[in-house]
Amino acid sequence: MIKGYRIPDATLERLAIYLRILEELEENGENVVSSMRLASICKINPAQVRKDLSYFGEFGVRGYGYEVDRLINTIKRILGTDREWKLCIVGIGNLGTALIRHGNFIKRGYRFMAAFDSDPSKHGKDLPYGLKIQPVSEMESTIKELRIEIGLITTPPSEAQKVADQLVHSGIRAIINFSPIQVRQKKECIVENVDFTVKLDNLAYHLSNINDKR
Amino acid sequence: MIKGYRIPDATLERLAIYLRILEELEENGENVVSSMRLASICKINPAQVRKDLSYFGEFGVRGYGYEVDRLINTIKRILGTDREWKLCIVGIGNLGTALIRHGNFIKRGYRFMAAFDSDPSKHGKDLPYGLKIQPVSEMESTIKELRIEIGLITTPPSEAQKVADQLVHSGIRAIINFSPIQVRQKKECIVENVDFTVKLDNLAYHLSNINDKR
Repeated sequence: MIKGYRIPDATLERLAIYLRILEELEENGENVVSSMRLASICKINPAQVRKDLSYFGEFGVRGYGYEVDRLINTIKRILGTDREWKLCIVGIGNLGTALIRHGNFIKRGYRFMAAFDSDPSKHGKDLPYGLKIQPVSEMESTIKELRIEIGLITTPPSEAQKVADQLVHSGIRAIINFSPIQVRQKKECIVENVDFTVKLDNLAYHLSNINDKR
Repeated sequence: MIKGYRIPDATLERLAIYLRILEELEENGENVVSSMRLASICKINPAQVRKDLSYFGEFGVRGYGYEVDRLINTIKRILGTDREWKLCIVGIGNLGTALIRHGNFIKRGYRFMAAFDSDPSKHGKDLPYGLKIQPVSEMESTIKELRIEIGLITTPPSEAQKVADQLVHSGIRAIINFSPIQVRQKKECIVENVDFTVKLDNLAYHLSNINDKR
């Protein structure tokens, strides 16, 4: 891989998906995987899988495939997920609570270090992993003290942009916004807006086309 | 657009994202948008935007741009989101409740028609939109009676595959699985596995590369 070259987001997302599939295969005791098999599980073209991997110097052996554990380590190194990342989350309603409890974050090396909410009646309440809900006024000092790097926003939409600005002001350099509004990116911070319904549009398209054929 | 041609998933996802941006622009009273502006908000290359849209016969006028309302209608027609889609959801914990309450679904034409849980202590409990939590044993009859088309899974991972099989058996043709396990697709049903941490891997990559440069 050429150092300093920026990988396109679409490729990054495919790598992240390969990684998850490979880890599942490894858990099931599989040591080797073919590009065909990986492609079929990911619903991607096998040529695309081979192209993505050969680009990072990973060449499968014809008729044999890729070594699963080696591929896992390579992808983790590329993505920067071979270390732990510290998260905080703002807005502890149903969605915030669900994300903190969701098994995937810690499994993938993302550790919730702090949880904030503007509602005083929630302050001090216990959450999993020894977290307690803190007031938003403690955001800046907590983020700096614990060296938190990534912020998740699960507030109502009316609060999201303000919270994003506060996170950036507190030194956060990457944000995922789950609130149903587009949070605008600032130069010093990367923002990913997650919209649960984007995947539904994809399903709607496929269902429409199946129906057309009937 | 050539009838019957399958649009790649990556293009579909970009169209869904353009649609959301365009609707926000329309809400803010903007009638015309340039490919440059749309690309900048979506963090995509302007040439990609022009290519995606010209493919569907939408040509912007040089120095003027695209008509926002016309583009919204075209994309909705392509995606099949110019009509309402009926959803059900299985697993009414924090995440299930958060999704039902999340404003985006109904705004985008996705209506929750039924909610199921295997825990008898939850049955009959009220949810927003006049929903009540139903036992899983009522899944098949309810889905058929209400002609529900899409199923969301928010159960613990140990339940997800079984629930997916029950949904398919009940006539569901498209599933979104939010549980942290890959649900396998069957021939007669499209499955999208949503993993909240995939976006985090993208951020980890970008943060790692910023840090490298320092």
